[in-house]
Amino acid sequence: MTHDIAVIPGDGIGTEVTPAAVEVLEALEIDFEFHEADAGDAVKAETGEALPEETDDLAASADATLFGAAGDTAADVILPLREAVDSFVNVRPATAYPGIDAVRPETDLVFLRENTEGVYAGHEDRLSEDVSTLTRVVTESASRRLAEFACDYVEDGAHDGFTIVHKANVMRETDGRFRDTVAEVADERGVATDEVLMDAFATRVCLDPEQFDVVVCPNLAGDVLSDLAAGLVGGLGLLPSANVGPERGLFEPVHGTAPDIAGEGIANPAATILSAAMLVEFLGYDEAGAAVREAVEATLEEGPRTPDLGGDASTDEVTAAIVDRL
Amino acid sequence: MTHDIAVIPGDGIGTEVTPAAVEVLEALEIDFEFHEADAGDAVKAETGEALPEETDDLAASADATLFGAAGDTAADVILPLREAVDSFVNVRPATAYPGIDAVRPETDLVFLRENTEGVYAGHEDRLSEDVSTLTRVVTESASRRLAEFACDYVEDGAHDGFTIVHKANVMRETDGRFRDTVAEVADERGVATDEVLMDAFATRVCLDPEQFDVVVCPNLAGDVLSDLAAGLVGGLGLLPSANVGPERGLFEPVHGTAPDIAGEGIANPAATILSAAMLVEFLGYDEAGAAVREAVEATLEEGPRTPDLGGDASTDEVTAAIVDRL
Ligand SMILES: CC(C)[C@H](C(=O)O)[C@@H](O)C(=O)O
Ligand SMILES: CC(C)[C@H](C(=O)O)[C@@H](O)C(=O)O
Repeated sequence: MTHDIAVIPGDGIGTEVTPAAVEVLEALEIDFEFHEADAGDAVKAETGEALPEETDDLAASADATLFGAAGDTAADVILPLREAVDSFVNVRPATAYPGIDAVRPETDLVFLRENTEGVYAGHEDRLSEDVSTLTRVVTESASRRLAEFACDYVEDGAHDGFTIVHKANVMRETDGRFRDTVAEVADERGVATDEVLMDAFATRVCLDPEQFDVVVCPNLAGDVLSDLAAGLVGGLGLLPSANVGPERGLFEPVHGTAPDIAGEGIANPAATILSAAMLVEFLGYDEAGAAVREAVEATLEEGPRTPDLGGDASTDEVTAAIVDRL
Repeated sequence: MTHDIAVIPGDGIGTEVTPAAVEVLEALEIDFEFHEADAGDAVKAETGEALPEETDDLAASADATLFGAAGDTAADVILPLREAVDSFVNVRPATAYPGIDAVRPETDLVFLRENTEGVYAGHEDRLSEDVSTLTRVVTESASRRLAEFACDYVEDGAHDGFTIVHKANVMRETDGRFRDTVAEVADERGVATDEVLMDAFATRVCLDPEQFDVVVCPNLAGDVLSDLAAGLVGGLGLLPSANVGPERGLFEPVHGTAPDIAGEGIANPAATILSAAMLVEFLGYDEAGAAVREAVEATLEEGPRTPDLGGDASTDEVTAAIVDRL
């Protein structure tokens, strides 16, 4: 069976790390067909569209999409793409690796971020000269769907349960609904949960990240708190993510275009290759996914390494080392 | 001139650290009259009201209010009290102290948090069986008032400028308005600013807190990011805050009721005493405020210390040591 993969490198180092991840995918014994498409600042400068219709269509019909990064147009690219694949959850592991400098080397978390609503579904208005508003949306159906996913995730990975993060002491109706719905589903499924306020989570995860494992949260909370966890593990350079829908998925590094080093051939491909590992697992090849992850981990630990991790290897050299270890 | 100070200890360790701060205030050569009032879980259990009208009235008429902490009713107490004193900015310094264990000992930040709107002014609705909404509010007038305060703060403290934190790539109208208004005021005033997205701030402040100094942000961003900074300096136990209005102010530690140690006489009074120092400065006594802060800092460095900081002193002993150093 052939899997159609949309490949959208985007801008900056996206154009360097995405081909690296494709190289790793090509080294697996899986039948992929790759279809490349444009998105981001560069194509916008040329055509006026940050996300050309062909690209959107491609993501909407491919079995899975691998995305690199986009510059100033990031929100115009990534938010519609998440919708194109109908992804309802953004899976963001934040793991520190042995030998890599980290503020909190014991960090090993995974965020399951609601991916369709909250302020991201926000309708905005200018009500008067003075007043602007945004309507934040929380639905029971989206909360329930996320919770079912979280329960499957906990069961499949033999986790002890999950933590619900919210701000229901202030957003009583919306986050209260999120919290109650998620807790209720988990309860029905026999999955253990605890809950913590978003602000308290921010303090506690710095002081002792080991007290958390799987973290389920609304959209913006997931955005900010997973980036906080990225800070604890040493930066965005190593964090993959998966936008998962019922049939399709979109896989992207958490980092951006890194304009300071773009074009030099020294971008760290680890986050994108780890995202490709999530893609492979999403398609059902658990062993191949694990093999890619182990090859990346071994390369992080033993080298070669790119300059952001204190090494002097190029993107190509690191990619070749990962392929060698497969 | 006599200053009327409302004193609202609240629940848990609030009832231990608030009297400690009053003791320090009494040791200053300033003419205070203290008026104590109830708020929180305990008075709610008795009377059905977490914030009795007398307490609200007292805060609304006192020159300044010192608040301790409240338990489950925290939001029902603190949000109306912030309104009662008409506070439009929440000033939250997050500073690591020599000799105190911190994830990031070089942290020295101050958050100027918008204190009246955002999701906190949110009107919530249940639109249908499935859909709940919250209307987030951002006004030009509140953004402008905060920006003027931030400019004064930067000028008075000889800071280089401030950083505007926002999520305007998603909340284009509301946070876009916040960012543009704040930047425009600063520009008119000749105060330098830069800007960073809320999620990027979370990563960057972990990796290198020294790149930031004064941080201006919307209400919920300030809540979460200042708690994140609390994690970097070693916990909530040392963080004071000032809710500042045009005429009155409300001063409170960032920590909560600490039910695990409440009643044992070992709560760390530093955050509340540092909040009292902010109160004293708010009333115009800059030297007395600085003296209190220095006495707290010397005591943190040289002891005695409460158990949360590895010592074995009581709240009373630490308070006495601070008073002695005045
Ligand atoms: C680019 C932006 C819209 C996006 C988000 O807020 O989700 C990014 O920060 C992310 O987390 O992927
Ligand atoms: C208790 C709660 C409503 C409050 C807030 O969200 O502002 C608290 O977290 C704080 O920061 O003082």
